[in-house]
Amino acid sequence: MERLILHEDPVSGNCYKIRLVAAHCGLPLERRFYDILKGETRTPEFLATVNANGRIPVLQIGDRFLPESGAACFYLADGSPLIPQDRFERADMLRWMFFEQYHHEPNVATLRFWLAFVGEERLSADQKAVLPAKRKAGEAALDLMNEYLRDRDFFVGGRLTLADVALYAYTHVADAGGFDLTGWPAVQAWCARVSALPEHVTIDS
Amino acid sequence: MERLILHEDPVSGNCYKIRLVAAHCGLPLERRFYDILKGETRTPEFLATVNANGRIPVLQIGDRFLPESGAACFYLADGSPLIPQDRFERADMLRWMFFEQYHHEPNVATLRFWLAFVGEERLSADQKAVLPAKRKAGEAALDLMNEYLRDRDFFVGGRLTLADVALYAYTHVADAGGFDLTGWPAVQAWCARVSALPEHVTIDS
Repeated sequence: MERLILHEDPVSGNCYKIRLVAAHCGLPLERRFYDILKGETRTPEFLATVNANGRIPVLQIGDRFLPESGAACFYLADGSPLIPQDRFERADMLRWMFFEQYHHEPNVATLRFWLAFVGEERLSADQKAVLPAKRKAGEAALDLMNEYLRDRDFFVGGRLTLADVALYAYTHVADAGGFDLTGWPAVQAWCARVSALPEHVTIDS
Repeated sequence: MERLILHEDPVSGNCYKIRLVAAHCGLPLERRFYDILKGETRTPEFLATVNANGRIPVLQIGDRFLPESGAACFYLADGSPLIPQDRFERADMLRWMFFEQYHHEPNVATLRFWLAFVGEERLSADQKAVLPAKRKAGEAALDLMNEYLRDRDFFVGGRLTLADVALYAYTHVADAGGFDLTGWPAVQAWCARVSALPEHVTIDS
């Protein structure tokens, strides 16, 4: 495979997903660091060469750039057991990846970012106004996961897939956004299963 | 293939994506209609049998249910030319599908829904408060697409893929949300190319 470079901020769960997939696939990943709080992904150079959308993570493959964490995870895992061979299971894995980006990340991850990294006292009035709605939507996402995981070890096919990686990244650190996972015991047990796998790496590694 | 049933609201662009993919793949699709404005996707029966997340579209395949438009499109198109064979192109297609769900749909589609279906006068104070931010984010998504399409006929690999289907669904009706596409000429030209393809079906078909 061509040289792989992850353009990332190490505190970002979206970036962590890609490192976790690389670890499970045994792929070496070089890392370039950017501080999103300092606007380092909005510089003219970053916009022109890495991602016109001004966001990390971006997976660089040789001289090609691939934004969006789910796409980068799919690229790395393509052909590995992290992507099911079965047609329905493969689509069902994507279903949870899209669920994560639409219903989970904008709420669970955003609250962690705002409360643990920006700081509640530095939030804008607009951000403060949407906090309660984001908390409610984040709780609804965790409710849905908890119900689904009540009789399942992993999200799809009884083993780790990209669906688990995508949902684990921000779920296991959700307490930093004020979501106490003891209220979602099936989610907690699933987090323990994911982190106990042999190739697992932690978000701060 | 097993019997395919689309649980949908015909005005939803997310549902239209699935019909458009089915048309391009020549797959027959039965349709079940729900009115989201009347809460028909939040009934106990819908939540228990179709989607615990209370949302359409859901693609039913035999007796299995697949929520999330991107996942349903991938299921239908799996093995067809709508999904590139090349590993990078396949991931790049997903990149645009995730971009659409994260950066485009919550802005471009939401403004269409609020302004053309709910009605501006019936929006809540919270919804009115985020209108300007959603308009700005929607414009940024269209700017990015316009720049990208300046020297491309389609998003990935020079031909129609799920990336185009995902982005076309809400872009071609963006004027209903107050986005005048004459400001994004490369996007307009791409819309014309997508709609001119032989198997194309319209959102109201």
